[in-house]
Amino acid sequence: MTSPLNSGLNRLTEAVLKSYDSDARTQRVGKMMQPSRSAIVDVLELIRQLLLPGFFGQKKLTRENIRYHVGNLLVNLGEKLADQIYHCMCMAQACGRCTHGPQCRKQAETMAGKFLQRVPSIRDALALDAQAAHDGDPAAKSIDEVIYCYPGFYAVTVYRVAHELLKLGVPLMPRIMSEHAHGLTGTDIHPGATIGRSFFIDHATGVVIGETTTIGNNVKIYQGVTLGALSFPKDERGRVIKGHKRHPTLKDNVTVYANATILGGDTVIARGVTVGGNTFVTKSVNADSLVAVEAPKLQIKSKRRK
Amino acid sequence: MTSPLNSGLNRLTEAVLKSYDSDARTQRVGKMMQPSRSAIVDVLELIRQLLLPGFFGQKKLTRENIRYHVGNLLVNLGEKLADQIYHCMCMAQACGRCTHGPQCRKQAETMAGKFLQRVPSIRDALALDAQAAHDGDPAAKSIDEVIYCYPGFYAVTVYRVAHELLKLGVPLMPRIMSEHAHGLTGTDIHPGATIGRSFFIDHATGVVIGETTTIGNNVKIYQGVTLGALSFPKDERGRVIKGHKRHPTLKDNVTVYANATILGGDTVIARGVTVGGNTFVTKSVNADSLVAVEAPKLQIKSKRRK
Amino acid sequence: MTSPLNSGLNRLTEAVLKSYDSDARTQRVGKMMQPSRSAIVDVLELIRQLLLPGFFGQKKLTRENIRYHVGNLLVNLGEKLADQIYHCMCMAQACGRCTHGPQCRKQAETMAGKFLQRVPSIRDALALDAQAAHDGDPAAKSIDEVIYCYPGFYAVTVYRVAHELLKLGVPLMPRIMSEHAHGLTGTDIHPGATIGRSFFIDHATGVVIGETTTIGNNVKIYQGVTLGALSFPKDERGRVIKGHKRHPTLKDNVTVYANATILGGDTVIARGVTVGGNTFVTKSVNADSLVAVEAPKLQIKSKRRK
Amino acid sequence: MTSPLNSGLNRLTEAVLKSYDSDARTQRVGKMMQPSRSAIVDVLELIRQLLLPGFFGQKKLTRENIRYHVGNLLVNLGEKLADQIYHCMCMAQACGRCTHGPQCRKQAETMAGKFLQRVPSIRDALALDAQAAHDGDPAAKSIDEVIYCYPGFYAVTVYRVAHELLKLGVPLMPRIMSEHAHGLTGTDIHPGATIGRSFFIDHATGVVIGETTTIGNNVKIYQGVTLGALSFPKDERGRVIKGHKRHPTLKDNVTVYANATILGGDTVIARGVTVGGNTFVTKSVNADSLVAVEAPKLQIKSKRRK
Amino acid sequence: MTSPLNSGLNRLTEAVLKSYDSDARTQRVGKMMQPSRSAIVDVLELIRQLLLPGFFGQKKLTRENIRYHVGNLLVNLGEKLADQIYHCMCMAQACGRCTHGPQCRKQAETMAGKFLQRVPSIRDALALDAQAAHDGDPAAKSIDEVIYCYPGFYAVTVYRVAHELLKLGVPLMPRIMSEHAHGLTGTDIHPGATIGRSFFIDHATGVVIGETTTIGNNVKIYQGVTLGALSFPKDERGRVIKGHKRHPTLKDNVTVYANATILGGDTVIARGVTVGGNTFVTKSVNADSLVAVEAPKLQIKSKRRK
Amino acid sequence: MTSPLNSGLNRLTEAVLKSYDSDARTQRVGKMMQPSRSAIVDVLELIRQLLLPGFFGQKKLTRENIRYHVGNLLVNLGEKLADQIYHCMCMAQACGRCTHGPQCRKQAETMAGKFLQRVPSIRDALALDAQAAHDGDPAAKSIDEVIYCYPGFYAVTVYRVAHELLKLGVPLMPRIMSEHAHGLTGTDIHPGATIGRSFFIDHATGVVIGETTTIGNNVKIYQGVTLGALSFPKDERGRVIKGHKRHPTLKDNVTVYANATILGGDTVIARGVTVGGNTFVTKSVNADSLVAVEAPKLQIKSKRRK
Repeated sequence: MTSPLNSGLNRLTEAVLKSYDSDARTQRVGKMMQPSRSAIVDVLELIRQLLLPGFFGQKKLTRENIRYHVGNLLVNLGEKLADQIYHCMCMAQACGRCTHGPQCRKQAETMAGKFLQRVPSIRDALALDAQAAHDGDPAAKSIDEVIYCYPGFYAVTVYRVAHELLKLGVPLMPRIMSEHAHGLTGTDIHPGATIGRSFFIDHATGVVIGETTTIGNNVKIYQGVTLGALSFPKDERGRVIKGHKRHPTLKDNVTVYANATILGGDTVIARGVTVGGNTFVTKSVNADSLVAVEAPKLQIKSKRRK
Repeated sequence: MTSPLNSGLNRLTEAVLKSYDSDARTQRVGKMMQPSRSAIVDVLELIRQLLLPGFFGQKKLTRENIRYHVGNLLVNLGEKLADQIYHCMCMAQACGRCTHGPQCRKQAETMAGKFLQRVPSIRDALALDAQAAHDGDPAAKSIDEVIYCYPGFYAVTVYRVAHELLKLGVPLMPRIMSEHAHGLTGTDIHPGATIGRSFFIDHATGVVIGETTTIGNNVKIYQGVTLGALSFPKDERGRVIKGHKRHPTLKDNVTVYANATILGGDTVIARGVTVGGNTFVTKSVNADSLVAVEAPKLQIKSKRRK
Repeated sequence: MTSPLNSGLNRLTEAVLKSYDSDARTQRVGKMMQPSRSAIVDVLELIRQLLLPGFFGQKKLTRENIRYHVGNLLVNLGEKLADQIYHCMCMAQACGRCTHGPQCRKQAETMAGKFLQRVPSIRDALALDAQAAHDGDPAAKSIDEVIYCYPGFYAVTVYRVAHELLKLGVPLMPRIMSEHAHGLTGTDIHPGATIGRSFFIDHATGVVIGETTTIGNNVKIYQGVTLGALSFPKDERGRVIKGHKRHPTLKDNVTVYANATILGGDTVIARGVTVGGNTFVTKSVNADSLVAVEAPKLQIKSKRRK
Repeated sequence: MTSPLNSGLNRLTEAVLKSYDSDARTQRVGKMMQPSRSAIVDVLELIRQLLLPGFFGQKKLTRENIRYHVGNLLVNLGEKLADQIYHCMCMAQACGRCTHGPQCRKQAETMAGKFLQRVPSIRDALALDAQAAHDGDPAAKSIDEVIYCYPGFYAVTVYRVAHELLKLGVPLMPRIMSEHAHGLTGTDIHPGATIGRSFFIDHATGVVIGETTTIGNNVKIYQGVTLGALSFPKDERGRVIKGHKRHPTLKDNVTVYANATILGGDTVIARGVTVGGNTFVTKSVNADSLVAVEAPKLQIKSKRRK
Repeated sequence: MTSPLNSGLNRLTEAVLKSYDSDARTQRVGKMMQPSRSAIVDVLELIRQLLLPGFFGQKKLTRENIRYHVGNLLVNLGEKLADQIYHCMCMAQACGRCTHGPQCRKQAETMAGKFLQRVPSIRDALALDAQAAHDGDPAAKSIDEVIYCYPGFYAVTVYRVAHELLKLGVPLMPRIMSEHAHGLTGTDIHPGATIGRSFFIDHATGVVIGETTTIGNNVKIYQGVTLGALSFPKDERGRVIKGHKRHPTLKDNVTVYANATILGGDTVIARGVTVGGNTFVTKSVNADSLVAVEAPKLQIKSKRRK
Repeated sequence: MTSPLNSGLNRLTEAVLKSYDSDARTQRVGKMMQPSRSAIVDVLELIRQLLLPGFFGQKKLTRENIRYHVGNLLVNLGEKLADQIYHCMCMAQACGRCTHGPQCRKQAETMAGKFLQRVPSIRDALALDAQAAHDGDPAAKSIDEVIYCYPGFYAVTVYRVAHELLKLGVPLMPRIMSEHAHGLTGTDIHPGATIGRSFFIDHATGVVIGETTTIGNNVKIYQGVTLGALSFPKDERGRVIKGHKRHPTLKDNVTVYANATILGGDTVIARGVTVGGNTFVTKSVNADSLVAVEAPKLQIKSKRRK
C-alpha cells in the first residue's frame, strides 16, 4: 500500500516528538521499565492454579504428580511474581534511589516469598467464601460450579490475593489485579478494604467497595451495591485528608440487596441487618434491623386513555 | 535470578500440599479432567460464525464456497462441542458412574448433534432480535451495525445458544457461556430464563435476568434493569425451595427503562406496560399502563448562599 | 472420535444453507470483507502507545531511540489504521459504489493521515484528564497510576480517539472502539458525545453517556450515572426524528455522584452544580446548586421482634 | 538495559543508510513487496495435505466429511497460492509494467486455478513414486511409512509440485519450494528437470539433479549422486549460452549408487544401466551395462610395524 | 480477492475426490488418526531436556528446584510419549485389531514407562560420546560446546533414543525421530544399527549408517561416510531377503575419514583400523591397518599453454 | 489418561536425579543460564534484515520510512544481540569470575555495538558475493534470486556475520550461527576460516571448510567439497597442537568442482587453478593449472550376457 502518510512522515514524527517534550505527565521516555499488565495477569492465573488446584489449567493432577506440580509451580510463579513486583517498585519509586536495583530486586524476591507462604491461609478463606456462595444462592448446583463460574467468587479471590500483596507493601500490583477483576466482573473492590470470612457477592456487576470499608463475617451483597464515601473531609487548608476512614462498616451477618448505596466512614451497619434493594443509607443502623425504601409510590397511568 | 525462595522450597511445597489435604472443597486432585473455559469460548465463537455467517471470522464467503465452509465448520465445531460437553458432564457427575466414559462421550456427541440441528431456529430468533434492536434504537445505523457492535445483541445471542444447550440437558456449559457474556457485556441473563421473540437490551451494563424470569415478545429493556427475586420461599424446615418461580413475568410489548428493578415470582407486568427509569416494582401491573416513580422531590440548594 | 454427526452431515449442511438463504439480514455471504474487531483493537493499542509513550508496550524508550520508535510506530499504525478504515467503509457502504475500491482505499489513507496529525492535540486533552483524575480521587497515588490503572481514564482515552475518528467521517470504527472500552470498563460513552477538558469518571462501571450529550470542562461523574434520553421526539408520521438533541447538557465544573440519572435533550445542568447519588433529574438546574434526593424515608424494622 | 549503543544511534543509523544508498544490488528499498518464504512453505504444506489426504494435518478425515474438507482446503489454498504467485511475479517483474497490479493478480489467480486442476495427475505420479520406494528399499515396512517418513519421497513430491508451477510460468516460487526441500532433505532437484514415473531417491542427502537433466521411468538413485554439468558452452563472445542442455539423460530402469557423479548434456545412460557407487561418468553408456570403478587399489599398511 | 477458482469450485472438488477414490495407496480417508510429526519432535526435545539438564530449555535449574523440575517433566513427557506411541501403533497396525484401543493405549503407556527407566543408561552413553567428541576434535573448546553445538552429537543423541524405542517395539516413531535428525544434520543413522560406546561423527553432513551396521567402541567417522549395503541377497524366488545382515561391521577404535564408503554385510573393519578419505572398501581389513586410496594420479595441465 | 507411570513416579524421579549426580559432564544444574539457540537464530534473522533490507521481513520499505525502520531495528537488534552475547560469555566462562555480571554485560554491549558498526563493510562483501553467484551460475536469473533463494549465499552470509563476531572475541555464538546455517544448507564453514571477496558456493550440500582454511578472492566451489585437515600435528607428549594451520590455502580465482577433497595446512592451491570433480588433493598445485582425476577406468560389463 502506498500511503499518503509517507510524504509527511518526517514532519509528523517531529510533531509527535514535540508533543512528548511539551508535557512530561503523559510520557515516560527515559524512565525505568514499567510492569507488564499482561504478565501480572499471568501471575494472577498461576496464583489461582496454586490456590485452587485442578480447577484451572489443563493438567490432570493426581496424588502421585501433585508434589512435583506444586514445587514446579512455586518456582515458576515465584520468579515471575518477584520480577513484576520489582518493576512495580521501580514505577512507584518505592526504593527511593534508582541505582539500588539489586537491593530492590532482593526485596521483591523477599515479598514474593512471603506472599507464597500465605497461600494456605488464603485457601482457608476461599473455602469459606465458596461455601457461603453455595449456601446463599438457590441457583448454585455445587461448590465446584461456584469456584468454576461465579464472577463474584472470582472478584473475591482476586481481592484476597491483592489484599495480601498490599499488606506486604507491594506497590501498584494490587491495584492492577483488582482493576483486572473489575474489568472482568464489574466488581470494584479496593485492595485496601478489610473483608471478613464467608463473603459472597451475587451477580457482581456494578459493585463498588471503597478503600476504607470494613466488612465482617457472613456478609452477602448483590449487584450494583456501592459502599462508598459520603464526603471527603478536608484539612484547614481545604485539602482532602488522606488515610481517613471514609467508607462504611458492615458487621457480621449483614445482607445488602441489589443497587443499595451505603455511604460514609461513620456509617455502621450493625450485626444482622438486612438492607433492601435500591436503599440509600447514610446513617448507622442498629443490629438485626430490616432497612428498606418506603413502599414506593408509583404513578400508574393507563396508556389507553391517553 | 537467585531467589530466596529456593532455600525454603521443600518446606513451602509441603505446606501447600498439606493445605490441599486439609480442605477437599477447594481442590480437585485425582478427579476427572475439568472442561476448559477457553475451549468453550472458542466453541461459542464457532457457533456465532455458524449462526451469523460473514460477520465474524476473517474469511470471504461466497455463493460458491459457502457449502464447503459450512460443512467443514459443522465437523470442526461438532467435535469441539462434543468434547467440552463430555468434560462438563464429567465435572457435574451427570453420568452417575465414572467408569462409563464411552457412554458419556456418545451422549455428549448426541447432544452436540441435536444442538446443531437447532441452528436454523436460533437464526430465526436472532434475525428478529437484530431487527428489534435496529427499530428500537434511534442511533442504530443498520442491522449490520447491531450484529457487529451491540453488546445487548451479543448477550441475547449467547443466551439463545446457552438456553438451547440447557434444554438439551448439557450441564455447566450454559452457565460458563452466559458468564462469559456477562463478563464482556455486564448483562447477566441466566440461561434458564424464558425469553420470547424480538428482544432488545440497550446499553446492556448491569442488567440481571433471573433463572425463572418469563419474557414475552417485543420486549425492550435498558441498562441496569434487574428482573430479580423478592424473597426465597422456604419449606417447613426453613430450607430454600428450589425450582420455585421467584422471578417476574413480562408480557408482550413491555418496555423497562434504565435501572428499574422488578422483583418477585408473582409479579406480572402485563402486555404493553412501560416501566420508567429507576422504578422499583414488586407488584403486578395492568396492561397498557405507564409505571413511573412519582415526580422526584429534589432538594435543590444554592451552594453560593452556603 | 467417531461422531454420530457424520451420518447426517450432508443433511445438516443443507439445512443450515437453507436457513442462510431464508433470511438475508443475518448473513453476509457474497458481500465485501468486514473489518476485524481484533485488528481494530490492535490499532487502538498502537494509538495508546503513541499517545502515552512508555506506559504501554514492553520497550524501553530513551531520548536516543524515541525518534525511531515514533517514526516506525507511525508507519506501522498508519497502514493498519487505513486498512481497517477501508474495511469499515466497505461494510458501511460509505463510498456508494462497490467498484471504487482504489478511491475508497485512498480516502481511507487520507483519513488515517489526518487522524495521526491530531495526536498532539489528543495528548493535550489526556494530560488534563489524567490530572483531573489525580486531583479528584483521594486514593490516587500519582498520575502514573491513573494512566496505568484507571478504567475511567481508559474509557475517556478511547472516547477521545473514537470521537476524532467520528469527526473525520470514519464509519463503524468509532463505535467498535467505544464498545471495546464499554466491555472492558462498563462505561458506554457514545463517540458522538461532546466532552470538554479535564473530565474524570470514577469507578466507571455502569456509566452511560448518550450520543447528543454535551459536557463542559472540569466535570466529574461516578459509577452508574446515566446521561440519557427522556423520550424520542417523532415526526408527524410517528417516526423517530434522528439527529435531534435528546441527551442532557452539563456545563463546566459539574459533579454527578453515583447512580444518578439525568435525562432529556433540554435538560441543562448549569455551571458548578453538584448532583447527589441516586438522584433522578429530568429538568434543568440552575448554576451552583446542590441537587439531591430528599432525605430518604427508610423503613427500619427490627427483625428480632418479628 | 542501558546500552552504549544509544549514544551513537544516530550516527550508526546514518552509516547504515549510506551503505544502502551506495549499493542498489543488496537492498530493495522502495520496490514492490517480496513474496514470503514462510507463506510459500505454508502453501506447500497445504498442497501436500491436498495431495496426500490423511497423512498430514491433524484432522480425522471420513467418507462423510472429506468433501467439505477438500472444498474448503481448495478455497483456502487457492487464495494463498494466488497471493504468493502475485508477489513472485512482482519480484521477478514478469508482468513488465508496475502499474498493472490488477491484471497481474488476475493472472496469478488463473495460474493458481490451473495448478489445482493438475492435482489428480500429480497424485497419480506420487502413487507410483511411493510404490517404487517401497519396492526398492528392503527396509521399507509399508507405503504409509514411505509417504510419512522418507526424505527422498518428500523431495520428489516437492519436485513434482514445483515442476508443474514452473511449467505454468510461475516465477521464483518453484525455486523457493525446491530450496526448501533441499534444506530439509539435502536433495537439490532443480524444478526444471524432467523426471519420469516411479522415481526413487534413497537416503537423499547430497543428491544434485541439474536443470536440464532428463530422467526416464523406474529410475533409482542413492545419496550423494550428482547429475551435473561438465562444462558451460559459451558463445563466440565468451558468454555462457543459456538454455543449452548441459546435464545428463538417464533412460528407463537406470540405477545409480551412492556418490556417483554423472556429468554432461551429451551423456546418455541408456536403458537398464547400473552405475556403481563413487563412479565418475562423463560419457554415454550402452543399455543394460554395469558401470563401476575398477577394483580400487587400496594401500593397506600395518600400523603396528610403524 | 475474487478468484476465478470460485466458478469451478464444485467441479474441482469432485475431481479431487475422484482422484482419492482411484488410488487407496496415497490417501488415509476413514482410517485411524496418524501420529503427529511435530508432536514427536516436541517429545524428542523433552527427552533431550531430561537427558541433558540445563543445556536445553530456558529454565534455571538449581539444586533446590531440580527434583520438582524432573518429576514434572517425567509426567508431562510420559503422557505425550505414550500418546504418540499409541498413534504410531495405530498407523502401523501393530495391535492387529482396531477395536482394541484401550489395550493398545495401555501397551503404549507401558512402553513409555519402560523407556523412561532407561534414561540413566542413555545418559551414561551420552557422557562418553560427548567426551569422545571433545577428545577427538582439536577445535572443540569444551564438552559444553560439544553438547550445545555439535550436529554429530545431536545425531548420536537421537540415535540412542530412537534405538531404545525400537528395542521396546515402538513402531514408526524411531524412524520419524531419526529422519528428523537426518533433516537437521544430514546424518542418516538407521535406528536399528548397533553402536558401541564413545562414538563420534565430525561435521556430520552426508553420513549414512545402515540398519544392520555394527559399530564397536571408540569409533570416529567423518562427513560423507557411507556404511552401506553391497547387494541385496535374494531368495530362490528372487525376492529381497529381509533381516539379513547387509551392512558392515566396524570393531573398536576404528577411524573412517571423510567420504569413505564401506559396503557389505560380510565386510569387517577390524580393531584399530584407519580408513582414509574417499576410500571405497568392500572387503574386510585386518586389525591395526591403515587403508587408503593409492596416491592419486592427478592430471595437472597448465591452462596458460592452452 | 491414567498412566502406569504414576505409581513409580517417585522412584523414577530419584533414579534420574541420581544419574545427574553421577556425571557432571552432562548436566548444568546450578550453573549460569545458557544462551538460547532460538534467540540467537532470531538475532541472525534481524541481522539479515539489516544487511539486506527489503529482502526479508514482511514490511514495505520506502525512502520515507527506511530511516525509522533502521534506527528501530538497530535498537531492537542491539539489545537482543548484547543479551545473547552475555549469556554466551557466561557459558564459556569468558569473564573469569561469576560475580562480575555487570562488567560482563557492559562488555557484551560493547561487542554488540562494535559488530553493528561493521554492518556497512559486511554489506560491501555480500554485494560482491551475490554478484559472483549471479555471474557464476548459468541458472541464476537475477541477483535478487541469488539473495532470496541460494543456500550457498545464505551460508556465506552467515559466515561473514559469524566471522566478525569471532574476531570481536564473542564466544560460542559464531559456532551456533554457523551450525544453524550448516543445518539449513549442509554447508559447514568454520567461522574462523578466512575468506576473500566474491566467494560463491553452488548447491552447497556437503561442503566443509575448516577453521584454518584461507581462501582468496573470486573463488568458486561446488557441493561436497572438503577443505580439511590431513593430520593433526602433535607435540612431544603426543597431544594435538592447537592453533596450528591444518587446512589448505586457496589463492585468487580458484575453482573447485563437486566432491573434490583438498587436505592439509601446507597445501596451497595457487592462483587460477581449477580442481576437477571428485579429485583428492593433498599437495600444492601451481598457478593456472587444471587438476583432475585421471580419465577414470570404468569397468563396463553388459548385464545381458550375465
